[in-house]
Amino acid sequence: MIVLVGFMAAGKSTVGRLLAARLGRTFIDTDAGIEARAGRPIAEIFSTDGEPRFREMEREVVLESLRGGDAVIALGGGAVTDPAIREALEETQTIYLDVTAEEVMRRVGSVESRPLLVSMDPEALLAERRPLYESVADLAVKTNGRDPARVVDEIVGSLGSTPATGPRRVRVGLGSRSYTVVVGAGIAGDADLLPDHGHAEKAFVVTHPDLVDMCTPLVGALASRGLDVRTLTVPEGEDGKTLEATADLYRGLQDADAHRHDLIVTFGGGVVSDVGGFAGSTYARGMQLVHVPTTLLGQVDAAIGGKTGINLQQAKNLVGTIYQPSAVVCDVTFLASCPPEEISSGMAEVIKYGFIVDPDILDLAVRRRSDIEARDPQVMTDVVARCVAIKASIVSSDERENGERAFLNYGHTFAHGIEAAAGFTGIRHGEAVAIGMMAAALTARELGRIDDDVVALHRSTLRSAGLPTGARLDLQRLEQAWKHDKKYRGGVRFVLLMGLGKPEADVQVPRAVLEKVVELVGEEGAS
Amino acid sequence: MIVLVGFMAAGKSTVGRLLAARLGRTFIDTDAGIEARAGRPIAEIFSTDGEPRFREMEREVVLESLRGGDAVIALGGGAVTDPAIREALEETQTIYLDVTAEEVMRRVGSVESRPLLVSMDPEALLAERRPLYESVADLAVKTNGRDPARVVDEIVGSLGSTPATGPRRVRVGLGSRSYTVVVGAGIAGDADLLPDHGHAEKAFVVTHPDLVDMCTPLVGALASRGLDVRTLTVPEGEDGKTLEATADLYRGLQDADAHRHDLIVTFGGGVVSDVGGFAGSTYARGMQLVHVPTTLLGQVDAAIGGKTGINLQQAKNLVGTIYQPSAVVCDVTFLASCPPEEISSGMAEVIKYGFIVDPDILDLAVRRRSDIEARDPQVMTDVVARCVAIKASIVSSDERENGERAFLNYGHTFAHGIEAAAGFTGIRHGEAVAIGMMAAALTARELGRIDDDVVALHRSTLRSAGLPTGARLDLQRLEQAWKHDKKYRGGVRFVLLMGLGKPEADVQVPRAVLEKVVELVGEEGAS
Repeated sequence: MIVLVGFMAAGKSTVGRLLAARLGRTFIDTDAGIEARAGRPIAEIFSTDGEPRFREMEREVVLESLRGGDAVIALGGGAVTDPAIREALEETQTIYLDVTAEEVMRRVGSVESRPLLVSMDPEALLAERRPLYESVADLAVKTNGRDPARVVDEIVGSLGSTPATGPRRVRVGLGSRSYTVVVGAGIAGDADLLPDHGHAEKAFVVTHPDLVDMCTPLVGALASRGLDVRTLTVPEGEDGKTLEATADLYRGLQDADAHRHDLIVTFGGGVVSDVGGFAGSTYARGMQLVHVPTTLLGQVDAAIGGKTGINLQQAKNLVGTIYQPSAVVCDVTFLASCPPEEISSGMAEVIKYGFIVDPDILDLAVRRRSDIEARDPQVMTDVVARCVAIKASIVSSDERENGERAFLNYGHTFAHGIEAAAGFTGIRHGEAVAIGMMAAALTARELGRIDDDVVALHRSTLRSAGLPTGARLDLQRLEQAWKHDKKYRGGVRFVLLMGLGKPEADVQVPRAVLEKVVELVGEEGAS
Repeated sequence: MIVLVGFMAAGKSTVGRLLAARLGRTFIDTDAGIEARAGRPIAEIFSTDGEPRFREMEREVVLESLRGGDAVIALGGGAVTDPAIREALEETQTIYLDVTAEEVMRRVGSVESRPLLVSMDPEALLAERRPLYESVADLAVKTNGRDPARVVDEIVGSLGSTPATGPRRVRVGLGSRSYTVVVGAGIAGDADLLPDHGHAEKAFVVTHPDLVDMCTPLVGALASRGLDVRTLTVPEGEDGKTLEATADLYRGLQDADAHRHDLIVTFGGGVVSDVGGFAGSTYARGMQLVHVPTTLLGQVDAAIGGKTGINLQQAKNLVGTIYQPSAVVCDVTFLASCPPEEISSGMAEVIKYGFIVDPDILDLAVRRRSDIEARDPQVMTDVVARCVAIKASIVSSDERENGERAFLNYGHTFAHGIEAAAGFTGIRHGEAVAIGMMAAALTARELGRIDDDVVALHRSTLRSAGLPTGARLDLQRLEQAWKHDKKYRGGVRFVLLMGLGKPEADVQVPRAVLEKVVELVGEEGAS
């Protein structure tokens, strides 16, 4: 447990999320927890109920968070004024993010969303609180004018001890639908990692025909929990993500008298978790679901966050649900059996997290390239856990993609267009995403949002992972595909960076810029 | 707005729900609202946070409820101790449910779930609170030893004024997914009743080929809101509830470039809302959904509560989702075009609400029989709104059927078996439900749970509505069907009455009793 304290705008949420990602742990923002519980923004709680009432809610949420597992927790600026919270912090590793009052005012901009600043001078308030922060902190880190990633570097360095070697557990916090993602080596046969299966009598392992042998430890673990285990298969590749494959799964479930309390366990890559998850979320109006992703793409992306989907004709994931599993088990030893191009493809999504949230991942991808190519279990556990921590924190705050979950589509608008224009053949998803991110970077540069060096960092990182950065594209065919996209709304919209770790969604781009970008991406392909 | 106050166990929740049903209004139980918000039972809030904290939460929830629309609100026993709540009650019609301390102790049984009784004598507490109840009440009603339905009779009688004649609005309270069901005559063409459609550009009306002409006012209303309206059709009857019909809808949506923010409007009976709802809940991972049910079964049951479904081979609703619409519009003028047997079939579900919640509905069904047969708009508005109010209050407290939502399956376990054994041909759903309720009543009597007069009331009410009460059944075929049922869990389970308005779910019944019941139901059929 690591707790971040400090004044408003010290960067507790940003640093906290990065730190959790770096350590592959759950991130909890107690202010967000209070807002979720009250169903109202904090400024409104202050104005309607007053500060004492807010402090009571805060105490409850903070103490509850501190009782939880091994997480990184960011507290609100005033939490340390509560003696009960200060007492509880004596038991935890607490880090004070130190910031000056001038920097606070610069960062906050307007005081409206910060209720206390409306009535009080920040200098005076900070002077009053500083002794409290210092009294609970084991470590103080200055944040003025520093990049959050560098602040995280200092914290990680000061923590000294290397990260734990056992499985990492990351919580996806969604109230009564919360669940844990476990990441580790050789864990798929560990019956203790499976969730309590309640009234389930049967477990249906959904996988590809080729993977049936690889399921043995998992099947053994399920059987040792007293479950009657059956195996259902779906075809490899995009043929597995059809209404027909779904109907076959339904039939298999029906023939075996599956009931809603029984378990579906998907075993394989994104195809299996997408189609198995869709069948499981709709059979009997929703069965219990566990994902055991075996590919890098599955472990860092497809199996996390509850999106399920099948394709309709040429449209990917046009039918699907948002339905959270009860557990996800990411066993990195399976990555050893993946072909190199599948690891590269997965690295495109890993690199995506680097660009949208934690640039340190980009450094890791390049620096540990040979360990990643060798699928070193320790390094892969670290890579996967960090990505899972980022996706978990984003999904926890925006399950249905009304806000920041859209950032996860970085590079994907171009990628979907590229895949559709290619008829979904001859190009891997990760390759399309790599080209898509390069295109997004070039677009952002054309719009004056980022500099050449950020574009160059895209090129070097992607190429280091063995990914393409260019291709000959046809804008009219891309536009045709975008028009059918389920996210199209009176025009195509992009996720673009304003800088490293600073994505913005919903950006509309003039056609002339897109023409230029398509030309540049073509040159990248030729170079 | 009608508010019920009174001591714990005075019957505020039971009477409140019945009263809301009688008036076709939303029912709000503030104690349930507090528990939902805190995510913990009230006894736990008391023990962890103390009474003052609980009272603060209560004040907030109560004042918020009082600001809402035209509902029946049941307050917790101690709410009147709060001066702010007492002040707010001056503006509302407030009814005091009077109960003696002895009756309270008899009803409560154990004090464990009632935190205040652990530390305080009920007599003393009641003496302290009675003046407060009396000070806020416009009317006091004695409840000692009285059937809740009779208490409601007295309240309705005292309210004097007849119910409003305009459309009734019933809220299904599910947090951010809450929505309103409007019930009235000639309202399907009223554009103002449609929900705000946000970013929608297109509306897809899903209906049967025969009903396309009947949609004209609805299509006009949608078009007047600036929507590009298309019509998609599904076959009549159970052929409309297949994976093939769903695939046709998907294709129609895809061909028209439907996006997730566009609107699906189902127009027709339960088949249309089930399959249209399923397609709408899965296309683009969930579009906006509006139901416009045109049959009695659709208006009182299928279109309310978010269940969608299609059949797999012989298994009804084996695939589906729980996905709430943004609005439901029940226009009772459509009932005029329903054949008499469809009205009878719908009355089976109406009568079901009578047996499980509000016996007064049974009396209404018999007394207003000729008005119902004539589809009198005023009477049908009343019937539908009362049923909707009951279903809304149940769904609001148990969306995913972990508890009391199961009561809505009264008679349905037998009914599903009867329908499956008949191959889903030659028998209407309502007829099967009628026979199923009769079978459930006979089962309950065999188990000594209810008396002959309750059985007789089943027979007379169902027959008065033109419904069958018996049939030759084959227990082995029923058992075969039950085994495939998605609710089967180590044996078939029934909803049985302990008395009028007193259902219990999850009851297992010895085979010998079922044999006897099948024999008795056969005799009913012959008589």
